[in-house]
Amino acid sequence: MSAAKTLLFVTSNANKLAEVKAILATTGITVESKSIELIEIQGTIEEISKDKARRAADNVGGPVLVEDTALCFNALKGLPGPYVKHFLKELKNDGLVKMLAAYDDKRAQAVCTFAYCEGPGQEPILFEGRTDGKIVRQRGEPTFGWDPIFEIGGSTYAEMDSYQKNKISHRFKALQKLKAWLEEKHGGGVAPPPAAPQRIDRRNLGGHEVAQGGNFFDSFGEEVKPRAINIAGDGMGIRKETGRGWQFDNPN
Amino acid sequence: MSAAKTLLFVTSNANKLAEVKAILATTGITVESKSIELIEIQGTIEEISKDKARRAADNVGGPVLVEDTALCFNALKGLPGPYVKHFLKELKNDGLVKMLAAYDDKRAQAVCTFAYCEGPGQEPILFEGRTDGKIVRQRGEPTFGWDPIFEIGGSTYAEMDSYQKNKISHRFKALQKLKAWLEEKHGGGVAPPPAAPQRIDRRNLGGHEVAQGGNFFDSFGEEVKPRAINIAGDGMGIRKETGRGWQFDNPN
Repeated sequence: MSAAKTLLFVTSNANKLAEVKAILATTGITVESKSIELIEIQGTIEEISKDKARRAADNVGGPVLVEDTALCFNALKGLPGPYVKHFLKELKNDGLVKMLAAYDDKRAQAVCTFAYCEGPGQEPILFEGRTDGKIVRQRGEPTFGWDPIFEIGGSTYAEMDSYQKNKISHRFKALQKLKAWLEEKHGGGVAPPPAAPQRIDRRNLGGHEVAQGGNFFDSFGEEVKPRAINIAGDGMGIRKETGRGWQFDNPN
Repeated sequence: MSAAKTLLFVTSNANKLAEVKAILATTGITVESKSIELIEIQGTIEEISKDKARRAADNVGGPVLVEDTALCFNALKGLPGPYVKHFLKELKNDGLVKMLAAYDDKRAQAVCTFAYCEGPGQEPILFEGRTDGKIVRQRGEPTFGWDPIFEIGGSTYAEMDSYQKNKISHRFKALQKLKAWLEEKHGGGVAPPPAAPQRIDRRNLGGHEVAQGGNFFDSFGEEVKPRAINIAGDGMGIRKETGRGWQFDNPN
């Protein structure tokens, strides 16, 4: 099996598409997109992503890439996890914070999963990025999803600039894994896989957890267009100009 | 279109099956069962139930009945709702209670939905029973699911006997609607549809909400077999011997 030279990213989100295109620009792979109404199943993050990829591959009859984001609260044993979008839509950021009112443990993990499926009947391959953080009362511009309540090293995502955010993004980590795999599949002529994202040492962060938050819903539960970001060349945020300069704010 | 004379209830739960059989005993309809591994989608209660019924009808190639239970917290805008089983599994009853720690409003609604689908390509029909209650700290025998935290008129489900419970069960209400519809489809020769379940007036309950709780997971998140219940002849609990006496404890 070899990965397709043209990769179809099934998404209705223009910002996610552009980010994937930018990250994969050096691989020689052409990224196209298609918006398909895909249902999501209940289950683990892995089950949901794989099912979505299979469903998309069946729909288009060829190789596809899909993406999912989850926000896992430690005190809630990983929940709301893949169901966070429903909770954010109904309860907004304030409601998400209140779900942890009974707990001292405010730690959370942001999880981004890309799933690639070669075609109908093929087993999907997952590329997952995880970043640890903690849930705090809203701070910063309430632009995207749970950005204002997800704290990393003392700042919420909403308080950071794009460069800072993209140094530690779970989404970026996932994309780096996908990129490395695609480069390997396509052999020479493309850049070597980047170094694995550095594990951030919590001991150096003054007691703060390190994380990266945000997604694509505004405080009214509506999907929104993220602001411009820069696409860094590796998982730890070495800024790289793509020829188009800053692309999008981190939509994770 | 006419309803099938034999109804296939897709469930792996022997107790739910027996309850459906008992309730439908007077309709002349034979209830059979099949256990199928069915995925559940994310979405509204209605979307999830309809999808599950369609999936089951496609699987068996004929008429099917499926069932779903949800627990909707008022303060959480109806959540965890259809996702409650995941929260109960991970957080147990204590964790469900803690999800409302930040709110004075402890009201909740138990929702049982039966979905009937005539066959592949047919639109499913829903029969829904809803009962209002409130979430309290665990009281009573922790036998089934969220029974010990769902209070009705001053008692949790776990503190009630079967007869009391079945007077007000959301599950029983849903089954009564299904029964009435099946009787209508099959015309004469069967008992007339029972009176609609009585709406319980909250003003007469000393400030307590009226509800009915419980499901099929024990405090370790494992599915359990409910105790014996009596099957009442109508939604308000007129006890009726079915020839097999007490059947099961209320598995709602």
